[in-house]
This record gives sequence, C-alpha cells and structure tokens, in this order.
Amino acid sequence: MKDYLIGVDIGGTSVKIGKFNLDGVLLEKWDIPTDRRDQGRHIVKDVVDSIYARVRLDAIKGIGFGVPGPVKDGIVLRAVNLGWQTTYLEETVRALLGNHDIEIAVGNDANVAAAGEVFQGAAKGCRNVVMLTLGTGVGGGIIQDGKLIEGKHGVGGEFGHIVVDHVHRFACNCGKNGCLETLTSATGIVNLAKKRLETFVGDTPLKGYESFSAKRVFDFAKAGDPFCEGVIDEVADTLAYALSIVSLSIDPDIILFGGGVSLAGQYLIDHVRKFYLPYVAPFITEANFALATLSNDAGIYGAAYLVR
Amino acid sequence: MKDYLIGVDIGGTSVKIGKFNLDGVLLEKWDIPTDRRDQGRHIVKDVVDSIYARVRLDAIKGIGFGVPGPVKDGIVLRAVNLGWQTTYLEETVRALLGNHDIEIAVGNDANVAAAGEVFQGAAKGCRNVVMLTLGTGVGGGIIQDGKLIEGKHGVGGEFGHIVVDHVHRFACNCGKNGCLETLTSATGIVNLAKKRLETFVGDTPLKGYESFSAKRVFDFAKAGDPFCEGVIDEVADTLAYALSIVSLSIDPDIILFGGGVSLAGQYLIDHVRKFYLPYVAPFITEANFALATLSNDAGIYGAAYLVR
Repeated sequence: MKDYLIGVDIGGTSVKIGKFNLDGVLLEKWDIPTDRRDQGRHIVKDVVDSIYARVRLDAIKGIGFGVPGPVKDGIVLRAVNLGWQTTYLEETVRALLGNHDIEIAVGNDANVAAAGEVFQGAAKGCRNVVMLTLGTGVGGGIIQDGKLIEGKHGVGGEFGHIVVDHVHRFACNCGKNGCLETLTSATGIVNLAKKRLETFVGDTPLKGYESFSAKRVFDFAKAGDPFCEGVIDEVADTLAYALSIVSLSIDPDIILFGGGVSLAGQYLIDHVRKFYLPYVAPFITEANFALATLSNDAGIYGAAYLVR
Repeated sequence: MKDYLIGVDIGGTSVKIGKFNLDGVLLEKWDIPTDRRDQGRHIVKDVVDSIYARVRLDAIKGIGFGVPGPVKDGIVLRAVNLGWQTTYLEETVRALLGNHDIEIAVGNDANVAAAGEVFQGAAKGCRNVVMLTLGTGVGGGIIQDGKLIEGKHGVGGEFGHIVVDHVHRFACNCGKNGCLETLTSATGIVNLAKKRLETFVGDTPLKGYESFSAKRVFDFAKAGDPFCEGVIDEVADTLAYALSIVSLSIDPDIILFGGGVSLAGQYLIDHVRKFYLPYVAPFITEANFALATLSNDAGIYGAAYLVR
C-alpha cells in the first residue's frame, strides 16, 4: 500500500526532506546537513538513510529530488555547490533502494520550486506557469501543461542568464556580462544602487550606509526616496522586459515571483507590471502576476510533485 | 471507417486544403479563393462545401484549421486579413457538418506551420520545437512535448513582437517600436538597409537600385559586399538575441527557420549561430538550427497534425 510521497531539496548547506500524503499534504519535514566532503559523494546515501530511518520504504510511492544544477533525464549534469560533476542521481538512488517499487524523479531546484507552487502554492491547479526566483541569484522554472520544461540541455527556465543589460554590463558568475541576474538578484540590486550612487549628486538616505541590502533599497523606495525609486524602476523595467519576451513566447496563465527579493511584495509586482504592459501590448493587456507562497518549502513540495 | 485527415490553411487570398491519410501522407491538395466580402462570413461555409464536394464525410477523422490571428480554445479572437472579429470557428464548423463524428481543431497559422514541420517536415518526430517564420512579417510557433503552445491569450510563439531594437526603433504594425519583425522580416531587412544607406559613404552595389528586396541584400552579402554583410550581421544578431532568450527559457530540441527570408538558407543559419552561441553560453554550447522544408504546405500539414 503506497501512502507517501517524499520530496527532497538538496542545497549546498542542508538537505530538506518532506513526507507528504498522496494528496500533497505535508505530514512531516526535517533536514540533514549536506556533507560536501569527497566531492559530495556521501550526500545521496545520507538522504536515503535518513528517509529509511523515518519511513517504511514499502509505503513510499515515489521520491523526488531538487538539485542546484542542470538536470536531464534523471542525470545531474553538474552541481558546483555540492561538488558534483555529472551524477547519475536517479540510477544511484534506485540502486540504494534495492527492489522496492518506488518512482524516482529529479529536477533542477528552481524548476522544482515552480512545480511546488503549482502543487500546493500560489499557482495551485494552474497548467501553465512561469516562476522567477529572485534570490542571491536569479533562477526560474516553467510548467507547461502540468509538466516541468527540462529542456534539451537541462536549462529550461534559466532566465537569470538572459542577457538584458547593455548599459552597466556587470560581470556575471556565468562568464557573460549583463545577465538578468546581474541587475535583479539581491546582489544585483545592491550593485546597481552602488553604481548609480557613484554619479548621484542629490540626497538619499542610502548615502548614510557603508553597506546595505536589497531590502534597504526597497524600503527607502517604498518610503518615497526618489533615488531608491529610480533603482527599483530600473530593476522592475529589466524584469518586465525579460518577462515580456517569455510571455510573447509561451504566454503562461500566471507568472510567480519567489525568492528573497520577492519579499518586497505587491510593491515589486506593481512596479514590474507598470513596465511590462507596454512591452506586451497589444497582444496581452493584463499582467497575471502573483507572489510565491511556499517560501523555503517550495522545493520539497515540488520534488514530491514530480512523483505524485 | 476513418481514412483521412483534412488540413485547412486559411489565408487572406486563398484557402489551401489538403487531404491526408492517417499516417500524414498528403494525398491531394487544392485551394479555393478567400471570399472576404461581408466580413469574411462566407469563408467557413465555402471551405466545408469544398471538402464535402471532394471527400466523403464519414471517412474523415478530423479537420484542422490554421488561421491568421490569435486562437484560443477553438475561437479565433480576430483575423484582420479575413475581416473576422471573434469567430467561433470550431463551433461553426461543427454546426455545418451536422451529425458526423469528426474532430475539429483550430490554431494560429504560424503555430500550425510549426506543427506541420513536426508532423512531416524538418522537425519530424521532435517533441520540443521552436519555429520562426520570417516572411513579410515575423511569426512563430512552439511545440512542447508534441503539443502546440496556444497560450492564455492565444499569443504563444508571437516572437515577431518581442521588442529587441532600441537603436532604430522602427514603428511596428502592432503599435510598438523596435519589434523583432521591424528588423528581421523581409520588409524589416529592406528598411534597415535603407536606414544604414542614408549615412553610408562607401560603395555598395545596393546604391545602384531605387528599390530592392531582402533577397538582394542577402545576395550581395553572400557575394562579399561589406555593406550588405553589415546589414545581415545586424539582422542575424537581432534574431540570435531573441532566440537566445527563447532557448534559455524553454531550451528546445531544435529551432527552425521558415518563411521567405529563410530561403537565404545555410548562410542565414550560419550568421545567426555566430551571434547566438555567445548569448547562450555557457549553458548551451550548440545551435540546433535547421531550415523548414514544407514551404507553403506547412500550414495544411500542421492543420492535419492537430487532428491526427
């Protein structure tokens, strides 16, 4: 009798694991440290042992995994934060589980987070969803007709590395310049504010800080500081531009904003909408934007969704 | 006994109709003039009558339609070239056919052309395909997991109206400026060449012509004229940029080039590839580009694919 879905979200610091019933209700969650020694080769066994210690294998319908790297057909192509080169995750887990009839699925963590929001979050029940995760970096995921778009090279939803900025051209970790991530991640927003401060002669409370966070820029913008409003407008315009292209390509039912930067909430959405509508006119005349709701649990929900 | 699929491609001048066997082999094709009188209200009946005159209805499994406008759930939202406002095409055809058990499907013409290439053309057998149709305008279509992406607003694959040009900012028919179509359609290429000619002081054979076609610009570029090479480089860079965003979003198996401009052939593909690879690096290191092969028949093949 199959009673449970297991969702596993493997991060660079810890692995989150959730036990769900077949309807996607989270029954229990826990986490274990990510053991990155020896090129991360202990991680998978640690996860399987931890599940084994808590859940009867016969009762598990499937185990889904979210991992921080591109994934193709159950194979993790690389995951720098885990020390992994090409890793046959699906195969390895299957070998560790032995003869139990358990479905295994693997996805990229940002993609899987989008799936989580479709399963039990802000896009519950939607068939066609785009999610943009604005954190330290920028990731994303696309659910089309209820399924994750993995992509031929495992880079479906890799919005963070769309080249959008031809002005500042900040260097990106990926080796290019001007990627979406360089302006609209938490790090990018701070970099953009600092760059604009260099030539700004007016007053802004931001000048009182040696260092500051993206949240502070948002807070001052919300309080009406024109300098910070200008920074957020550029961030919002950049996001809107990238999303407009996505919309004129796949025209999703809803676009979700997740990650730390999305804690700026409705203020962020309203600003992106303002720039987005002219880019998609006259073909699209509304902006179906929403905030993600599952926060750090999106990964385990989405991993469970993969094997529902 | 169901023996045939019918594919109907409704254009502003003529309607192409194809009769296929269930394996997608084209058995017979013909066309009828598009009667645009009275807001195009005779078109659908003309098509049904024409099919009726040639094929026994009982033997038809399905009839698919491609129409020049956005389509959502069998409803054509508008089709300016046919004189159509919102048109309940699927419903109308069903009513005209009476009690026969015939599947009806409707899609946007550029989307349907992409489906045609998947059915029997350059992307035969591929599950995830992007097609860009470079003609008088620029259209496109996306097949994801074997199905057309229609989109919430019926604008899936509407690549032509992505805003990509912030330099020339040519006015687009859609009301915006700088859409992909304004630089990379046949018309756009000519406009771009004329604009660059205004300030070009060197020699180019193009200066000997009062007016010229996109094909002429390509021909001179292929023959090594630096001015025309520069024009094509800008066109190719613009296409590459738009496609890079599409690839970092949905990462298709293959990208097809169709429409009159694609007759420039491998030369076009090679130039787009040159600019594309740096935009998608390091996530994608190859350009799976190909030329569409069905030419003007892509529409009837694709319409038949919808009801296969």
